[in-house]
Amino acid sequence: MYSFKNDYSEGVHPNILKALVETNLIQQPGYGEDEYTLNAIDILKSKIKREDIDIHLLVGGTQTNLIAISAFLRPYEAVISAATGHIFVNETGAIEATGHKVIPVEVNDGKLRVENVKNVVDSHSGVHMVKPKLVYISNPTEIGTIYKKSEIEELSRYCKENDLLFYMDGARLASALTSEENDLTLADYGQLLDSFYIGATKHGALFGEALVLCNDSLKKEFGFNIKQKGGLLAKGRALGIQFYELFKNDLYLEIGKHENKMAKILNDGIKDAEFDLFIDSSSNQVFPIFSNEIIEELEKSYSFYRWTKIDENNSAIRLVTSWATLETEVLKFIETLKNLKK
Amino acid sequence: MYSFKNDYSEGVHPNILKALVETNLIQQPGYGEDEYTLNAIDILKSKIKREDIDIHLLVGGTQTNLIAISAFLRPYEAVISAATGHIFVNETGAIEATGHKVIPVEVNDGKLRVENVKNVVDSHSGVHMVKPKLVYISNPTEIGTIYKKSEIEELSRYCKENDLLFYMDGARLASALTSEENDLTLADYGQLLDSFYIGATKHGALFGEALVLCNDSLKKEFGFNIKQKGGLLAKGRALGIQFYELFKNDLYLEIGKHENKMAKILNDGIKDAEFDLFIDSSSNQVFPIFSNEIIEELEKSYSFYRWTKIDENNSAIRLVTSWATLETEVLKFIETLKNLKK
Amino acid sequence: MYSFKNDYSEGVHPNILKALVETNLIQQPGYGEDEYTLNAIDILKSKIKREDIDIHLLVGGTQTNLIAISAFLRPYEAVISAATGHIFVNETGAIEATGHKVIPVEVNDGKLRVENVKNVVDSHSGVHMVKPKLVYISNPTEIGTIYKKSEIEELSRYCKENDLLFYMDGARLASALTSEENDLTLADYGQLLDSFYIGATKHGALFGEALVLCNDSLKKEFGFNIKQKGGLLAKGRALGIQFYELFKNDLYLEIGKHENKMAKILNDGIKDAEFDLFIDSSSNQVFPIFSNEIIEELEKSYSFYRWTKIDENNSAIRLVTSWATLETEVLKFIETLKNLKK
Amino acid sequence: MYSFKNDYSEGVHPNILKALVETNLIQQPGYGEDEYTLNAIDILKSKIKREDIDIHLLVGGTQTNLIAISAFLRPYEAVISAATGHIFVNETGAIEATGHKVIPVEVNDGKLRVENVKNVVDSHSGVHMVKPKLVYISNPTEIGTIYKKSEIEELSRYCKENDLLFYMDGARLASALTSEENDLTLADYGQLLDSFYIGATKHGALFGEALVLCNDSLKKEFGFNIKQKGGLLAKGRALGIQFYELFKNDLYLEIGKHENKMAKILNDGIKDAEFDLFIDSSSNQVFPIFSNEIIEELEKSYSFYRWTKIDENNSAIRLVTSWATLETEVLKFIETLKNLKK
Repeated sequence: MYSFKNDYSEGVHPNILKALVETNLIQQPGYGEDEYTLNAIDILKSKIKREDIDIHLLVGGTQTNLIAISAFLRPYEAVISAATGHIFVNETGAIEATGHKVIPVEVNDGKLRVENVKNVVDSHSGVHMVKPKLVYISNPTEIGTIYKKSEIEELSRYCKENDLLFYMDGARLASALTSEENDLTLADYGQLLDSFYIGATKHGALFGEALVLCNDSLKKEFGFNIKQKGGLLAKGRALGIQFYELFKNDLYLEIGKHENKMAKILNDGIKDAEFDLFIDSSSNQVFPIFSNEIIEELEKSYSFYRWTKIDENNSAIRLVTSWATLETEVLKFIETLKNLKK
Repeated sequence: MYSFKNDYSEGVHPNILKALVETNLIQQPGYGEDEYTLNAIDILKSKIKREDIDIHLLVGGTQTNLIAISAFLRPYEAVISAATGHIFVNETGAIEATGHKVIPVEVNDGKLRVENVKNVVDSHSGVHMVKPKLVYISNPTEIGTIYKKSEIEELSRYCKENDLLFYMDGARLASALTSEENDLTLADYGQLLDSFYIGATKHGALFGEALVLCNDSLKKEFGFNIKQKGGLLAKGRALGIQFYELFKNDLYLEIGKHENKMAKILNDGIKDAEFDLFIDSSSNQVFPIFSNEIIEELEKSYSFYRWTKIDENNSAIRLVTSWATLETEVLKFIETLKNLKK
Repeated sequence: MYSFKNDYSEGVHPNILKALVETNLIQQPGYGEDEYTLNAIDILKSKIKREDIDIHLLVGGTQTNLIAISAFLRPYEAVISAATGHIFVNETGAIEATGHKVIPVEVNDGKLRVENVKNVVDSHSGVHMVKPKLVYISNPTEIGTIYKKSEIEELSRYCKENDLLFYMDGARLASALTSEENDLTLADYGQLLDSFYIGATKHGALFGEALVLCNDSLKKEFGFNIKQKGGLLAKGRALGIQFYELFKNDLYLEIGKHENKMAKILNDGIKDAEFDLFIDSSSNQVFPIFSNEIIEELEKSYSFYRWTKIDENNSAIRLVTSWATLETEVLKFIETLKNLKK
Repeated sequence: MYSFKNDYSEGVHPNILKALVETNLIQQPGYGEDEYTLNAIDILKSKIKREDIDIHLLVGGTQTNLIAISAFLRPYEAVISAATGHIFVNETGAIEATGHKVIPVEVNDGKLRVENVKNVVDSHSGVHMVKPKLVYISNPTEIGTIYKKSEIEELSRYCKENDLLFYMDGARLASALTSEENDLTLADYGQLLDSFYIGATKHGALFGEALVLCNDSLKKEFGFNIKQKGGLLAKGRALGIQFYELFKNDLYLEIGKHENKMAKILNDGIKDAEFDLFIDSSSNQVFPIFSNEIIEELEKSYSFYRWTKIDENNSAIRLVTSWATLETEVLKFIETLKNLKK
């Protein structure tokens, strides 16, 4: 049984493991004041090409989203998100649990455009409705699509003009940054967004997300929010070491490239075998459509999610590749699939 | 510079590190459904000697407290805690942030007694006041004292008779379980408490707390609370491996013993050098009282917290020992102290 | 200038005012323990034909919804509502502010059906999503439509079978109860719903909503929630007197009939003048479609809401009738309209 | 049976009732945009002698406190209150329910001093503790004592210097303003406080509290908070009319004077009969100490609260006077007491 279920099926990238071993007995201050964390933040700032930003290393994605968004908003302010957005669908109402409405917008490809945001803003006025204040996007989106730089620029401009905060969930950012379709850099994000996070859990870390605060108004006393929401790791060194290793030699991008390459082999092999795709993703998630019979056969040797039912006889599944995905297993999957087709 | 600042200055116990290395490439399901977590839970149940309990592995102490308490209580229900309680003082209002009042009780030694709880219960009635519903204790307490079995039994009885939930914060439970004064076992806790957590962050893990739900009424759909509050680790294996290693051969207790032994050497050495103690702790925290001059001298070679001011010229400091504390360093500290005394 | 803007433009029904005057100097206990409140609750129970229900008199609709729903749900449980639902659109995120997601469902006529609810339930599973737990409907709906008894029965059956709570916002319940299309009684609601409120603010009271708890599991310690959320009126007598007057001789239904009759004259007059309706409401709200020119002319003499834009040249407006709406004014409006048509 | 239980046992002052009757049929906009509310706010501003303040009319005291405080604070900020403070004891954790800790300070006479506030501020630092941000006082206090102008000035100065907000609960402000000991005016409060409310429920209104926002930074978008927390009254006219009547000819102060005068007769009569007082209040609350036998006798003819047990044989009770308290009844009470003494 080989798993394409997600990008967190294996442990941690060996480079990180090695660093954890080597530093293990060195005493360090707790709560993110250790030297590894300080170094990691320095490197991240240099990659984002801004010294005047704040960076906080956190454990998980839902945690990061809820800490950031609840810290940014006043009680009556709300979030605009695609209806497919992770915070709207898959975080058990974590944002609402902090008191804030998430306003969903139906979109086809998981991407928000200015027009979607404008519709929400224009239809809200007066004290009887929430005040839309933060635009939430994910890149890659939850269905594997990638934003173009021009799209992010347009959203950024609209947000600035309309006093909205622009926030990006980068749970799989390595995959976006190294996608064939990508034309954005970390430095671009640092300029165009008010805040975003760089996800590592799904790109080779044992856990870890780096929350970046670009907008000055969001920085003040931020640490209180982390502690209050249970996000302050005592042995913060574990986060520092991981981000240091991931970014000191661009291991993060290498991992993204590997994931995307493995996904592309899957994608191309599936097309080659004349199957349809639910969406043509250019990140590390692949969404083929198979008949129920084929899915059942595949489930004997592979684990993956059934994504959505297409019709009575067919469903889309989701295959995800990770830093550890083996090319031999990817090729074997394609081979298996071609045999099932016959 | 050697640190006695806390019990999370070093990394992780070597046994755990070894297990992380050995299991690293084995694919596992995410979110705590991996085999290491299942095994860890089995072992924990056998140590607690109850199969009918639920156990959830979480990352940190504040996170565990806030997830548990907010899940257990209805909106108007409140917590009774010693005024020194970690949730009252040192968690940035995490419990209140989930909507619940923490009612503080002044006590001398960090320990709640039935009489304290009864006073709170008796002074609350009617809908204009919160309804006290959960009794929170820490063992060891925040000032290093240890509960006796009879004290826990009395609190347990009072809580049952008065429809109160009885919850214990076991951030440093290994130290309590192996203290000279201890007469309680994990199995006792499983019988006497409605819920408690077994802390590992401060006893050799990189992070991790095992939340135990003994009372049936607290178990239902608990996982939703974990995810909603940002506490569900994608690579749950990292928790499972750690608890498995800590409990399969009682490493957890060995670590507690080591910590307590190092603390006792400090404690005895300090008394031997004729210094006073702020409180005579029998756990892995030591609270000597020194003159400001001596403290300043010590700070040149050691890091530790200044705990509380005694008078203009003297303060209590806190020294904490960990799984990794070296006996040579402990002896050197006593030596240094004796030299300063002269 | 005459107002059809809402049903709270005037003060209070004269019968109530008379009772307020007559009882003014009689001393009574506070917080809803006065004899007027007790009598009002008795009468309400007799109208609902159940003695085993709890009734709490509250001040406003948003307050009632948020107190009830936040008291009924555990933290991760969510509400299913039509996308037009008052709690989703017009209460400034009051429900989310208590921590609960409201899941919107797009419907044409403001009414939820079993199929809508089932879709939501079927698409939610596992701890990564909220757990849908309460079905919220308004009757009349926010766009003036009325539920049939068979529809309520079907929803009630589905909710019972699927462990969902069924709650109704009755802000304009007098209008629904006396609508031409109505086939439901207060006693039916008492059998089919877990909880609902009987709105008086929009039917002749100065303020006041009677929250009815039918399901035993919702009753316990409910008063704590009222006080905690700021809903406990010191001079609860003001609520008791109003509900007593509204229900002792079915004044509530008389007011509903008057409102509906005035609305019907508007509705029929508008049709007679050959204008279209946005929706054919059978309650006290009327939604005609007029050209922008006609709307501007009407605005010189009448106040009302512009409801929604139909196209570049036409919009729907909303006309609302109240207990105090004068038939002469209604007829004058139709007259004015017919003159504008020419 | 005559009630001295509280100051909300009777209905509304006749002047207000008259105004409610006279304005009843006049159509007005909803939600506080009516002319009575606008006029009331104008008068209040002139009494406070500041045009640059915002005033919102709300229904009840707990509601006002929770709306104001939750709007003013960021999530990790906390309130400093006397341990006797209404928000700490008697509002069912309403402030905590909005996410904020209330830090209690033990004081003897219900009054906070700079020293108390400074102790709290000095003992809080770093992200592991909440950040004290708002100082809450009540005037009169919950035990009937009155602040001097110099005390308020000192607190105000300390708050300004330490970036704290200074907020006053004025539930019984008329009684404070007209107390023999008072040397403060509404205009003083407008200068010295960041926000306060002028309570009317306990001074002749059917309900109503006027929240005053003096500090510019607190004003922005405040209305959203009112609506979200369920505090926006549809027929806002009911609040406007009451405050207009209470303030247009200083009826509010007249009521305060009457209440205090009645209380003084009680107070002096009790002393004259040689009973002790629990606290020598100069507001409309009187706290005599009686033997249990006398209390039981009094309870046959009067209703009042037993305030606190003094010893096995004696308790303090609370007697409260209202706008409607009759001097004949007050004299009869003293007479009864003197007879019991014999």
